[in-house]
This record gives sequence, C-alpha cells and structure tokens, in this order.
Amino acid sequence: MPKPKIERLALIGIGLIGSSIAHAVRAHGLVNHIAISTRSETTLARAGELKLGDSYHPDAIDAVSGADVVIISVPLGAFESVALHIKDALKPGAIVTDVASCKASVIADMGPHIPDGVHFVPGHPIAGTEHSGPDAGFATLFEGRWCVLTPPPGTNAAAIEFISELWKAMGSMVEIMEPAHHDQVLAITSHLPHLIAYSIVDTATNLEDDLRQEVIKFSASGFRDFTRIAASDPVMWRDVFLKNREAVLEILSQFTEDLTALQRAIRRGEGDKLQDVFTRTREIRRGVIDYHQE
Amino acid sequence: MPKPKIERLALIGIGLIGSSIAHAVRAHGLVNHIAISTRSETTLARAGELKLGDSYHPDAIDAVSGADVVIISVPLGAFESVALHIKDALKPGAIVTDVASCKASVIADMGPHIPDGVHFVPGHPIAGTEHSGPDAGFATLFEGRWCVLTPPPGTNAAAIEFISELWKAMGSMVEIMEPAHHDQVLAITSHLPHLIAYSIVDTATNLEDDLRQEVIKFSASGFRDFTRIAASDPVMWRDVFLKNREAVLEILSQFTEDLTALQRAIRRGEGDKLQDVFTRTREIRRGVIDYHQE
Repeated sequence: MPKPKIERLALIGIGLIGSSIAHAVRAHGLVNHIAISTRSETTLARAGELKLGDSYHPDAIDAVSGADVVIISVPLGAFESVALHIKDALKPGAIVTDVASCKASVIADMGPHIPDGVHFVPGHPIAGTEHSGPDAGFATLFEGRWCVLTPPPGTNAAAIEFISELWKAMGSMVEIMEPAHHDQVLAITSHLPHLIAYSIVDTATNLEDDLRQEVIKFSASGFRDFTRIAASDPVMWRDVFLKNREAVLEILSQFTEDLTALQRAIRRGEGDKLQDVFTRTREIRRGVIDYHQE
Repeated sequence: MPKPKIERLALIGIGLIGSSIAHAVRAHGLVNHIAISTRSETTLARAGELKLGDSYHPDAIDAVSGADVVIISVPLGAFESVALHIKDALKPGAIVTDVASCKASVIADMGPHIPDGVHFVPGHPIAGTEHSGPDAGFATLFEGRWCVLTPPPGTNAAAIEFISELWKAMGSMVEIMEPAHHDQVLAITSHLPHLIAYSIVDTATNLEDDLRQEVIKFSASGFRDFTRIAASDPVMWRDVFLKNREAVLEILSQFTEDLTALQRAIRRGEGDKLQDVFTRTREIRRGVIDYHQE
C-alpha cells in the first residue's frame, strides 16, 4: 500500500492534536499544502510563527475550500457550529474526519450536516499529553498508539481506507469500532481517570492554606501523577463530560460502589478484603504491560 | 559536617526501600558492615545473591546484635512483633529508625518497647516505585526526595542529627514534623491516591471479560498511570490503610463530597462548574512543578 498523499489538508483547530498532525504529516511527506484555521486570532498567529502550515485562515470556510481532507480538532461542544459553518464550502469527494474522544456525540452533531458526496470518517487517536495549544504538538505523538475509527453504516469504504492509511503513515495502529462501544471503553480508560484526577486535586485545592502548601511540597508519586493529569485542557474536558455523560455516569457509579466497599473494609479493619483487591489489581497491570510493552 | 559513618548497620526487611538503602549507603561509603535480616528465607537468599549485605541472618536478633544503627523496613503490621523480638538485643547507644509511611502507628507500636539508652528516630523517605522486593532497589532512589523525621518529644538531639545526616548523605532533603501531621499530609498525597488507583483498577477488574480486554488494550494515559500505581505491594498498602485509618477516612470523605459535586454537575449539564474546577486544579500542578522542577 503506497503512502497516502493529500494535495490540500485543512486543519480546523490547532491545539495539541492539530499541531501534532501538522508536524507528523509534514515529517512523513503526506501532504502538499496545509491550510490552518482556528477561532482564536492569537492561536492562529502562533501557528504561523511556528510555521505549522502553508496558509492561515481566520475563517474556516477559506481553509476547507478546495481541501481534499479536513481534520477537525476542536472541543466537542464546537462540532455542530463548525459543521454548519463549513458544510457548503466542502469540496465534493472530500473526506472529513476528526480526533475527538467521544464519537456518538460527534456523529450526532456533525453527521446530519455533511453534504452528499462528502465522506465523513469519525476518528480518535488515543494519544495526548497534559499540555495544550499549538506549541505542545510534536511529530511522534501518534507513533505506536491506537487510532480508533467509528464510521457510521454506509460510509464509503475507500474513504475509511484512506483515513486508516493516513493514521498508519503517522505511526498509529488502527481499529474500527462502534461509536457507542468506543465511548464506553474510553469512559473507563480515559474519562473516569481524568474526572477522578481532577476531583482529588480539587480536594487538595480546598484544603486550608498551610496544609495545601505542605501537600504540594511533599507530593509523593501518586498525587503528583494526578496533578499532571488534572492539568489537562479544561474546556476540552468540560465538553467530554457533557457529551459522554451517560457512559461516564454509568462507570462512575460502578467506581463509587467499589470505592465505598474499600472504605467500609478500612473502617471495619478488614485487612484480608483489602489485600485481595490490591492483589487482583496487579493482574490488570500485567495485562497492560503485555499489551504495550511498557 | 563530615559524612556519617556506621560501623555496623542492621537492615530489618530488604524490600524496595531496604535494598535501596543497602545500595545507597554502600555507594556513598557510609558503612563498614551491613547485616541483613528478613522473615522470608527466599528473600534473604535473594539478598545474598544480589550481594546487598555483608552478613545474612534468618533471626533479626543476630542482625541487630552489635549494630550501631538499625533500620526497620517492614510492613506496618509487623512493627510491634519486630520490636518485641529484637528489643533485648539492641546495643546501648544504638539508633533505631524506620521508613514506614505512617508515623503515629509506628511510634505507638514500637516506642514503648525501645529500651532506655537506645535512641528511636522514626523516619519516612518519601520515595518509591511500584516495584517491590530486593531486586527493585537502586542507589539513587532517595536523591532529591524528602525524608521526614518525626522524633517523639525528648528524643536525643544527636541521634536525630545523625539520622538526618545519614539521609542527606544518601541525597535526600530532611524535614522534621509532628507524627500526626505527617500522617495527615501523607493521607492526602500518597494514601488516598493509592486507594483511588486501586479502586478504579478494581472497577475495571470487575468488568465483563470482553470489555476488560478492550480496556487493557486501549488503556489511554489516564488509566495506564493508575494501573502502575495499583501494582504496588499489596501487604504494605493493606497495612497503610489499617494503620492510618482515621486520616485516610477523613480525606476520603472530603474526596467523595467533591466527586459527588462533579457527578451532579455532569448529570445537570453544568459546564461552567466543571470548567471552574478543571481550571483551579491547574494551579496546584503549577505549585508542584515549582517545588519539584518536574
């Protein structure tokens, strides 16, 4: 399979993921022209200073005009308005894809507005860092990471294949999944952990000043890891919890039950129960290591 | 201040922390003879294969006999029995210290059994990894990390100074703290994060097989970090929660309140509240980075 080659790529949104795509497609020679648009003038100017693209457009319509592939990397709450704004400017035969971490909401917000003759292949590269903005991107972010595609029934097979090859060319492994199933898996592996990290750091935020300062000073590995996760982009994560509400609330209620059982075991001094749980959890870690060769 | 020099050091317990001390005191030339004892014959034999010490003793009495400094690195539940077993073999003028992550319980379990003329300086190096056992230790574990000493009132000042210099010679920064206050700070920075990591990985453990396999496969950065924390030594952590019960239950109830507030905001679609919290938590991260130059 030869590498995909895109004559004109439009990147709508140029944060951590968008800018990493800009670096990666350039590094792998996958594109001739990168047209960048983002809502913030400051961010667009910064993308220019970083030479992330070939052209810069305050209006997304100008970026997508004539584009063969359009990649949308904006917070989940912005998809519907972006779709409504660009739909009439999309070139017949173009492929529209995205990188958002909830797929059902993107398909609901965007799908109905994609014109006939334009292909829509929703996607989610499972990759990221706690940093955000156009300075945060780097070409190797997607290497060795999964990218999940969730094309609705009836999506053009060649378009799916093209986006799949695009991610593989950036170093990713690709999997096709049902949107709702993707959202359930991600609620567990990513959304709930972020919610909990935000919550525990919020608990520390609410401590009295002296104690909070000491918590910062003596932050051991557990808490320090949580502060890193809880430094992720607030708007992006706000939208994740609003848009993947049902799946997050479902797994959160299971988590709360499990935590309450541990709390009860601590209060009653049931060491055997604690040790059983703490031993079982090592199995999952072994599974993760086997899969990812950490 | 010249480096401390110990003629005979007894290490009771030779897991991650004990073996790291063995490496570190050797690397920095702080000791002439290391006498190692641990309850498990297999572990003691392994310590010998790794050449962690100069002598190996199935009975802790033989290790502490004639020792100038005794460092106890056993699970919190074992302190009282260790104290009762070794107390009559301790040399007058010897210093006994420990590395446990709860201080009030160690002082309660061990303090009453320390003979007159022997100095007891409870300590806690805030350092570790998710690995355990004598193979896990390394000489640089304590470099740039805090070691908190919690000497009870009336502790010999020279003994405190000696243990303080010993940790500094291994690369640590030393702070003196009240035992109960130490336990409160660590409940927040270390014990609660571990409990939550164990709990979320337990939630994943309880999923149906297919879903669990996918969670492992697509473990995004959040969940993967939690599995690492949740791979920590089960017996050590069981004892932490049993021995620091009150402080852990107190901060856990604050955490549960905060998490419930986030859950309510998600259910009601209150994006502003979520964004406020997710923005506030970045401040704590900045504090951690400023302190630790991460």
